Amino acid sequence: MNIQESFADRLENVADKVTVALDALIPSVAGPEGQLLSAMRYAALGSGKRIRPFFVLECGRLFDINERSLLRVAAAVECIHAYSLIHDDLPAMDDDDLRRGRASVHKAYSEALAVLAGDALQSLAFEIVSHEDTHSGPKVRAELIHRLAIASGVRGMAGGQAIDISVKDNTLEMPLIARMQRMKTGALFQFSAEAGAVMAQASPEAFTALGGFAHDLGLAYQITDDLLDAQGEASKTGKAVGKDMDQGKASFVLALGPEQARERARMLAAQAKRHLEFFGQTASILRQSVDFVVERTG
Amino acid sequence: MNIQESFADRLENVADKVTVALDALIPSVAGPEGQLLSAMRYAALGSGKRIRPFFVLECGRLFDINERSLLRVAAAVECIHAYSLIHDDLPAMDDDDLRRGRASVHKAYSEALAVLAGDALQSLAFEIVSHEDTHSGPKVRAELIHRLAIASGVRGMAGGQAIDISVKDNTLEMPLIARMQRMKTGALFQFSAEAGAVMAQASPEAFTALGGFAHDLGLAYQITDDLLDAQGEASKTGKAVGKDMDQGKASFVLALGPEQARERARMLAAQAKRHLEFFGQTASILRQSVDFVVERTG
Repeated sequence: MNIQESFADRLENVADKVTVALDALIPSVAGPEGQLLSAMRYAALGSGKRIRPFFVLECGRLFDINERSLLRVAAAVECIHAYSLIHDDLPAMDDDDLRRGRASVHKAYSEALAVLAGDALQSLAFEIVSHEDTHSGPKVRAELIHRLAIASGVRGMAGGQAIDISVKDNTLEMPLIARMQRMKTGALFQFSAEAGAVMAQASPEAFTALGGFAHDLGLAYQITDDLLDAQGEASKTGKAVGKDMDQGKASFVLALGPEQARERARMLAAQAKRHLEFFGQTASILRQSVDFVVERTG
Repeated sequence: MNIQESFADRLENVADKVTVALDALIPSVAGPEGQLLSAMRYAALGSGKRIRPFFVLECGRLFDINERSLLRVAAAVECIHAYSLIHDDLPAMDDDDLRRGRASVHKAYSEALAVLAGDALQSLAFEIVSHEDTHSGPKVRAELIHRLAIASGVRGMAGGQAIDISVKDNTLEMPLIARMQRMKTGALFQFSAEAGAVMAQASPEAFTALGGFAHDLGLAYQITDDLLDAQGEASKTGKAVGKDMDQGKASFVLALGPEQARERARMLAAQAKRHLEFFGQTASILRQSVDFVVERTG
C-alpha cells in the first residue's frame, strides 16, 4: 500500500465517523417539518470528502483533544460547509443541478426547501458547538463559536462568495482572487485547523503554525480545484467539467495559466509542510494530507 | 397623551437605540464585499418595529441587566429576524417585492445577494452574542447561543417557515397552524423574552412566567398580523393586503373566521397579562405592550 492509499484510507475512516456523528446530530425525519429535515440530511449525509472535518480531527490530535469533542466540532464545520454548497448551487447563484454526482438540493426538493435547509444547517452548527458535550469549558465553546461565526460570515465564507459572484469576466487580478479564496474557502479551513488549538488553549506559536499551514493548504486546495475544473474528468469530480471556465469565473488557472497555477500549488504545498515542522513527528499524517490535496484527481 | 401613545414612544425609543447598535455592529460598506455589506445594512437598518428587541430590553430590565448587554442581544435577535424576512421574501418563497414599504432585498440588490445577506446576518447574530462584551460570563453566552440557535433552526423559525410553505390550500387544522406559528414566530419571541432571565440566571418560576407570556403574546401577535393582512390598509402594513389570503396560506383568520380570530387574540392577551403578575408592578410596560400588540393597526 503506498502513501496515497493509506492516507486515503485514513481520510475515509474520518469521513465515516463524521457521517455517523452528523446522522446522530441532525434530528430524524418526523413531523410536519419532515421535508426540511429530509433536505438537511440529504445535503449533510451525502458522500463528501469531509476534508474540513479531517483537519479538525487530525490537527486536534496534535493536542490530545478527545475524539468525541473533535467529532462534534467537525460535524458543525461540515454543517456550515454543506449549507454553503446548498446555497451556492441555487439558480440565483451558480445554478448547479449536480453536486457530488447527485441532484443538488433545490433539484431533489425545491428552491424554497434548499434555502431553508441551508439556513437550518447554519443554526444547527452553532447549536452543536454551544452544547456542553462539545467541551466542558464554556469559555472555549464561546471562543469556538466566535471564530466559526467570523469564518462563516461577511468577512469569511459568505463575503468570499459575494466577491466570487460579483465577478463574471476574466479581469479579476491575482491579489483579489487570492483574497476571495482566502475568505470563501480559507477561513473555514483555518477554523478547522485551529479548533483543537482553541480547545487546548495552545500557545501563540502553535496558532501561528496552524494558521500558516491552513492558509497555504487552503490556497493549494483551491488552485487544485480550479485545475481539476479546467482539466479533470467529470466522472471523478462529480460535476460538469469546465463549467467555471465557461462562466468566466475568477480562477487561479485563468489568471496564471495551468502551468504556473500548478507550480504555485506545489510551492504552497511545500510552505504548508514547513509550517508543520513546529509539531515534529506528530504531524506526519498532516504532511501526507498536503500531498493528497495537491495530487488528487477528483 | 394616552397609554397607546406613550407606549408607542417607548417602543420608538428602543427601536432607535437598537438601530444605533446595529449600525455599529454591522461593518461599514467597504472593500470588494461592499455590496454584501450594503445589502445587510439595507435589510437590518430599515424601519422595522423592533418588537423582538423591545422584549429583550424590557424583559431584561425586570432583572436589572445593563442596557449595553441587552442591546447587543437585541441586535443579534434583529439580525436573525432580518435574515428571515430577506429569505422569506425570495421569489422561491413568498415572492414579495415589498417589505416595510420599500423594495425587498432581492429587488433592491439581487437574488444572489439576498441569499448571502441573509446567511451573513445569521452568522453575525452568533458572532455578536459570543463576544465577551455581551456578557462577562462565558457560560451565559454559550447558553444564549444554544437557545438562539434552537429558536432559529429546524425546531424553531426555519422549521415553522417550512411548514408554512408546505401548505398552499386551506386545509391546515388549527392545532397545526398553532404549532407552525409557535415555531415560526413564537420561538424567537420566547428567546427575546427569556434572554434577560438567562443573563440573570433567574429562577425556574421566572422562566415559566416569561415563557408563558411570550407564548401567548406571540400567538396574539400572529393572529393580529393575519387580521391585518385580511382587513388592514396597505399604507399601514407596508405590504399588499390580502396577499396571504390570495395565496391560500394557512392563517388563523382562514381557520377561525375574523370574529373568532379576534376573540382568540383578546383571550391570549388576557392570559399573557396574567403571566406577568409574577413580576408585579415592575412589568407595567410589558402589560402595555400586550394591548399595543393586539390593538395595533399596522
